[in-house]
Amino acid sequence: MTVVIDPGEVAERFREEIRAQLAQLAATKTPLRLVGILAGDHGPSGTYALYAQRACTDLGIEFELRRQPRLAAEAAIRRANADDSVHGIMIYYPIFGTEHDAYLRDLVEPEKDIEGLHSTWARALYENRRFVDAAKTKKAILPCTPLAILKLVEAAGFFRAGDGAGHGQALEGRTVSIFNRSEVVGRPLASMMAHDGARVYSFDVDGPLLFEPPSEPDAAHRLCETNVTRARALAESEIVITGVPSKQFEKVRANELRPGSLCINFSTFKNFADDVESSAACFVPRVGPMTVVMVIRNALRLRENLHHG
Amino acid sequence: MTVVIDPGEVAERFREEIRAQLAQLAATKTPLRLVGILAGDHGPSGTYALYAQRACTDLGIEFELRRQPRLAAEAAIRRANADDSVHGIMIYYPIFGTEHDAYLRDLVEPEKDIEGLHSTWARALYENRRFVDAAKTKKAILPCTPLAILKLVEAAGFFRAGDGAGHGQALEGRTVSIFNRSEVVGRPLASMMAHDGARVYSFDVDGPLLFEPPSEPDAAHRLCETNVTRARALAESEIVITGVPSKQFEKVRANELRPGSLCINFSTFKNFADDVESSAACFVPRVGPMTVVMVIRNALRLRENLHHG
Repeated sequence: MTVVIDPGEVAERFREEIRAQLAQLAATKTPLRLVGILAGDHGPSGTYALYAQRACTDLGIEFELRRQPRLAAEAAIRRANADDSVHGIMIYYPIFGTEHDAYLRDLVEPEKDIEGLHSTWARALYENRRFVDAAKTKKAILPCTPLAILKLVEAAGFFRAGDGAGHGQALEGRTVSIFNRSEVVGRPLASMMAHDGARVYSFDVDGPLLFEPPSEPDAAHRLCETNVTRARALAESEIVITGVPSKQFEKVRANELRPGSLCINFSTFKNFADDVESSAACFVPRVGPMTVVMVIRNALRLRENLHHG
Repeated sequence: MTVVIDPGEVAERFREEIRAQLAQLAATKTPLRLVGILAGDHGPSGTYALYAQRACTDLGIEFELRRQPRLAAEAAIRRANADDSVHGIMIYYPIFGTEHDAYLRDLVEPEKDIEGLHSTWARALYENRRFVDAAKTKKAILPCTPLAILKLVEAAGFFRAGDGAGHGQALEGRTVSIFNRSEVVGRPLASMMAHDGARVYSFDVDGPLLFEPPSEPDAAHRLCETNVTRARALAESEIVITGVPSKQFEKVRANELRPGSLCINFSTFKNFADDVESSAACFVPRVGPMTVVMVIRNALRLRENLHHG
């Protein structure tokens, strides 16, 4: 019997937490105000943007969606950066679909980057610096989708008892396979899971890499070449995470999995065969609703830790 | 009759300049010391690295080539960043061949980034900030290949009389076509040429964009959508620059060119048909030897402007 986890239900628990934080915020600060920047004419982005807007409205957060031609995206980012009444900026990619998008990503002020994609945050993540202050009271921002996936791993009961994420041991002894090594999801996720104690096989079109836990606390993960096969990696893994946006990807089948495993798909394509949905111990078909909540959680953290007034 | 320009000969003039600067440097500072980081097993990079080493040795500059597996590149960059005796770092890409390379590119300290590829320099370039200090005495670093191409345009006699690059009018009234819009060459080059007064048609697989001169001095270039065809763009352009690393690219033919035009190829593939080499007014078959010299020029500028001791 497979437990199918609805990310919307897990998200609801976080929404409760967020409502409480918002109530606290209301007593001392101006209301949270977020801006979404939608450019170009790429279909799915518009839908995601509306989801985010609805999630925010539902929580009483102002979320203004700004649509413009792709060539106006840069000016829109600069305007939102300069506007003190805007606390967080969310950009819907692809805009150009080239490295130009990475340039735009880094134009967002890190203090307003609620998606956690700025190179400042990426660097903190890869270096396993979990706080922005020396006193270790202000947590660094993590990228929203990897963070959402980690929270779903926790919700599925795959963390060591008593350990929350970010304590270095929540995934100690676990083996993980991740199919995707993008700079936005797969690579940061592999690094975060290794920082939490896991051995992570990371696959992309160029082949596998192995992320291993730091050799001493607070150090960065180790990274090794490996010639592990997909078959062996899957047979070893308690957690399998897929995010391959292609029909060409050979779907992961039930007979490839280690018994008792957790399977999470964050691709818009189905990367698991139908038989996985009824044979894995635990299956998470999509991540989206959790991602939106993590964006809002990041927005609150930034507002609390890094904004004045 | 086509004038074929040998970039090695143009480079020689700059080498003279560099020798004089090095002699001056020798009187007051420790000798210039550069490090090249070569990782992965991508063929041409090794050759480029040896060219750079030879060019440096020839000028009496120490250039230490450090070879390591791709997974050790990050540590090698951090070591060179932290080493006060290293004045400049040159990295040979691709290392991973993915966005991971952009992450590495931004790990290099901007003050040691002699290739001018760090996002700090990219941002200065796109925003048309030509100096790093308020007094406008210390010039910003420009990316080495676009800078090399601009110097070749000047050497070919396509600058307005009396105007050097960087004065905002050197290319006033000129129309340019560039086939390549990468973040490393094509896009910065289009921006730089627009900042010097040109209208630039920029082509890549996604189609054309039009870069136009700033509407007021010191502002950034303007960027417009355009549905110009390749035929019309080429017929209008006095300068045609190609950098398409693909055999699929339909080579630019002589009958597509405006009479009297300058053609520059910076791709390792031949992007011009054979008849161009004998019918364009001026033809530059490759840029490489100039790029190496611009890297050294950047190294000297950084040493003079931003390094202490």
